[in-house]
Amino acid sequence: MRETTSKKLYQMGKEIVEQINEEKKPSMKIPVRSLSNIKWDETNKLLTLGDKKSKRHFFNVGHARKFMQTLLIASFCKDIVDENIHASIRDMYYNLKHSIGGSKENTFEEQAESDPLIVDIETALQTLREQLHLLADRKGVVVGNVVVEDRGDSINWSKLGSGGWSIPSVVEDIKFEKVDADFVLVIEKNAGFERLHEDKLWKKYNCILMGTGGQAARGTRRLIKRLSDEYKLPVYVLTDSDSYGWYIYSVIKSGSMALAHASDELGTPSARFIGLTISDIKDYKLEKSVIRANDRDLKRAKELLEYPWFHHKEWQQEIKLMLDKKIKAEIEALSSKGLKFLSDTYLPEKLERKEFLP
Amino acid sequence: MRETTSKKLYQMGKEIVEQINEEKKPSMKIPVRSLSNIKWDETNKLLTLGDKKSKRHFFNVGHARKFMQTLLIASFCKDIVDENIHASIRDMYYNLKHSIGGSKENTFEEQAESDPLIVDIETALQTLREQLHLLADRKGVVVGNVVVEDRGDSINWSKLGSGGWSIPSVVEDIKFEKVDADFVLVIEKNAGFERLHEDKLWKKYNCILMGTGGQAARGTRRLIKRLSDEYKLPVYVLTDSDSYGWYIYSVIKSGSMALAHASDELGTPSARFIGLTISDIKDYKLEKSVIRANDRDLKRAKELLEYPWFHHKEWQQEIKLMLDKKIKAEIEALSSKGLKFLSDTYLPEKLERKEFLP
Repeated sequence: MRETTSKKLYQMGKEIVEQINEEKKPSMKIPVRSLSNIKWDETNKLLTLGDKKSKRHFFNVGHARKFMQTLLIASFCKDIVDENIHASIRDMYYNLKHSIGGSKENTFEEQAESDPLIVDIETALQTLREQLHLLADRKGVVVGNVVVEDRGDSINWSKLGSGGWSIPSVVEDIKFEKVDADFVLVIEKNAGFERLHEDKLWKKYNCILMGTGGQAARGTRRLIKRLSDEYKLPVYVLTDSDSYGWYIYSVIKSGSMALAHASDELGTPSARFIGLTISDIKDYKLEKSVIRANDRDLKRAKELLEYPWFHHKEWQQEIKLMLDKKIKAEIEALSSKGLKFLSDTYLPEKLERKEFLP
Repeated sequence: MRETTSKKLYQMGKEIVEQINEEKKPSMKIPVRSLSNIKWDETNKLLTLGDKKSKRHFFNVGHARKFMQTLLIASFCKDIVDENIHASIRDMYYNLKHSIGGSKENTFEEQAESDPLIVDIETALQTLREQLHLLADRKGVVVGNVVVEDRGDSINWSKLGSGGWSIPSVVEDIKFEKVDADFVLVIEKNAGFERLHEDKLWKKYNCILMGTGGQAARGTRRLIKRLSDEYKLPVYVLTDSDSYGWYIYSVIKSGSMALAHASDELGTPSARFIGLTISDIKDYKLEKSVIRANDRDLKRAKELLEYPWFHHKEWQQEIKLMLDKKIKAEIEALSSKGLKFLSDTYLPEKLERKEFLP
């Protein structure tokens, strides 16, 4: 994998050099990432990038600076890939920021200049930020009957006490040595993860338990995807019953608009939603624990209603129910029925009845 | 420990019952937690709570609701301590929220009502939230030559690949089976943790490497404290060179005002500051990578200047230097000298010269 990425980066530079040698004006092709080029792929159930490309020219006052910056970043990535080390995008920014010889001009003034160019390179080379050895922030924790090999260590996810394995930002090089699990349960809230971990739910139901701590980080999404692809494990996602929770689910399942070019690698279309739904509020008598939805919640819910990936009648019903009743609920609302209600009643019932939303 | 906490909670209830049996008006004593009762303990170098107490009366219109709520929480805590399970403060809020028989009045309307009462119980009973089995959010990651036993598992912090051990929110029950380290290095930034972990700094220098991801969580602070107390390990803290980074250091070292009652358990007065300082900017030629301090940074720095725990001449110099030059710098600024500069040059030099701030 490292060699492939290194070659792609080399090729990118080589093409520019060839243009110069042929006395052509140097230019590079970058896929368009604006909304107009983001498509919903109905067959694969993923958000994807269309075919539109734009050209970045060196001899264009509006392009020259970005052209130079793109090549600086590509060159930086080639170096760290070849050296087999990783860098955060902030480290990269600092590393590349310097004044250009003989001028007072800086290569970069702020990180907001370098960040989007990383995505340009990702899309242009059809590679991932992780493969360019650029780190995203780590977040997410996992436990279960799984043994992985990572940097020469053998790590048993079932032997981590009350902690868990802190999911690294790059999971490409992890080797699965043993995966003994029937499904993956992803939970949005850290508190819920602690509850289920303490109640040993992953042992009782032989599953892999993953906590995302809000929106799932790229490393966590990649790990879910790999477990789904390589071991055909069903993936069930548990979030709050509100527009934000549901969107967290949809990003795990279908990818996001900001990272549409990477949906193939980050999205897990087979994922199913286990809860919480608005219907749960009535079914489990949680009326005392609901929260009134505010204008922002409702606006966001109306947006979800329009997204093609929520165009299932079950989702349309749930979202409309929320808009109608103007309520939402958190996972913790189940604690009003007892602290172990989530582990002992709610999840077992949902799993038993296979009550999942698409 | 569980028995002690359970007894304290039992005693609290018993005293109220005795007052009732003696036909006294029920009341309880709660330590005052406002600024007026927060002291700087110069001898122990910790922020602490003074002796002032206030009385909460049942037969007082202004107190009755809080009185009822305090007892509800104490009773909840006794239950989970006895059952040996843990709950998040949000779970507790939902669990205790219900309408009072024969009325439309709810026990709690929002979590903002229950949160401060937890601290009341902590201070009144001289116990910790962790001992009441209430979970704080987990954050923080650790690696090093350490083996711990937790919930029956033996966990080797040196065999966790590119990940690390996700520090649980309650570390009271962790047993250290092996601690082979010369010091603890705490780093504020996740990206910095990844860098040092990848460069195997903890192997080279035989240290425990801990990442806090911003302000250190209670579990992380307790873990630092335990390693310092039980193994007499020096603790060095690495943060950004700005008021927020320095405050993160001071909270690890001396405790915080909000948790003054718990400084004894959470603060590590022997901790030393390894960097970044404003002087480092000149010493390591980082001028190109500084950030202009904004008004908020400067205001915060002026506040730090006044805190007794920053009344060391070295700190006064550094803070004044910041105010004078109106600049700050991030750990990542060191990457301008090369990605491995932090691991290969900066930290080794600081450790070698024992260049720490008090």
